[in-house]
Amino acid sequence: MQLYSFFNSSTSYRVRIALALKGLDAGIRPINIRKLEHRAAAYMAMNPSGSVPMLHDGDLQLGQSLAIVDYLDATHPEPRLIPREAVARARVLELSSVIACDIHPVNNLRILRYLTDVLGVTAEQKDAWYRHWVQDGMRAVEALLERYGHGDFCFGDAPTLADVCLVPQIANAQRMGCDMSAYPRAMAVHAHCGTIEAFQRAAPSAQPDYTA
Amino acid sequence: MQLYSFFNSSTSYRVRIALALKGLDAGIRPINIRKLEHRAAAYMAMNPSGSVPMLHDGDLQLGQSLAIVDYLDATHPEPRLIPREAVARARVLELSSVIACDIHPVNNLRILRYLTDVLGVTAEQKDAWYRHWVQDGMRAVEALLERYGHGDFCFGDAPTLADVCLVPQIANAQRMGCDMSAYPRAMAVHAHCGTIEAFQRAAPSAQPDYTA
Repeated sequence: MQLYSFFNSSTSYRVRIALALKGLDAGIRPINIRKLEHRAAAYMAMNPSGSVPMLHDGDLQLGQSLAIVDYLDATHPEPRLIPREAVARARVLELSSVIACDIHPVNNLRILRYLTDVLGVTAEQKDAWYRHWVQDGMRAVEALLERYGHGDFCFGDAPTLADVCLVPQIANAQRMGCDMSAYPRAMAVHAHCGTIEAFQRAAPSAQPDYTA
Repeated sequence: MQLYSFFNSSTSYRVRIALALKGLDAGIRPINIRKLEHRAAAYMAMNPSGSVPMLHDGDLQLGQSLAIVDYLDATHPEPRLIPREAVARARVLELSSVIACDIHPVNNLRILRYLTDVLGVTAEQKDAWYRHWVQDGMRAVEALLERYGHGDFCFGDAPTLADVCLVPQIANAQRMGCDMSAYPRAMAVHAHCGTIEAFQRAAPSAQPDYTA
């Protein structure tokens, strides 16, 4: 099993956490998105999404981080990251979607580049854009954690897809200098996950393609 | 069961299709996102995402369209919209994610409004932004349909979450005047789905809050 990954991509980071939690060893194939390697024809022939991550498992070449985590859950169900029970599952998928559909897609590299390179917005405007969507999404995340309670993780006593999405999003927001003090529940989960080896091994700084 | 929905919201449209395919009657509670009703305090207390759709089912108030469709699949499994088998499911979720994570989030009303109202981009620049992300995402959708083949639907002989996401996205793109001629496979699926009553009943023009 091989994972095409960029150290600083938060969607790659999600899948790396899922693999580590399940104790799966996937060879990392670095794809440098800053150098547009994810848009090279040979890569896009494997992964039409033209993005990282991509999982190569046997005959399957699979893009899109949420589809990959779900696939890993289906093929390596222990520990499960998306619960089986309908309501528990709904809560995990709802919070994950806030991050994966409402925050991350509007703040990733291709969007920020379009803002500056095509629309000519200033660095200040770009940063304000980034913060705006982080704040709106994290407000929703915090409200969902407040509604459903949490211990060390978003839901229940073990990591789920919600934590797999939350930790990279917070790392990304911190790197961009966002003030995260309004989200104490989310930050407590983030801090706890940081003590767990699987999360540590998946971190950007632990990757073979890491550069400072 | 009640669905908080806006007739022209493509995420609401997804859930309406899923409900109709499963033969479920949910009362429609219109939320006019043009009038910012989705950001009213009383609504956000129910649905912290501050968006449509939201499903209210018994004690559960659930936001995020993909979480809602998954919940409907878990609680009303016939017909299933997300296959059980690992690889089939991966393909459906991958294509659905291209639409739900790569195309729709960067082109919805809140983003287009930020572009014009906060960043002051021209109508022409806004339209070019919209077309750019539709084209990049639809190219990926078309490549995935080419890779895995299709009959009347994206995958196999029955509708899945992929079709549930595709039909509203194409409707949205057509409304915005995008040229869709480069995606014949996707357009054939769209045309076929348009002949099915469940898809027709879920369409914007069939909604109680529809306005021309």
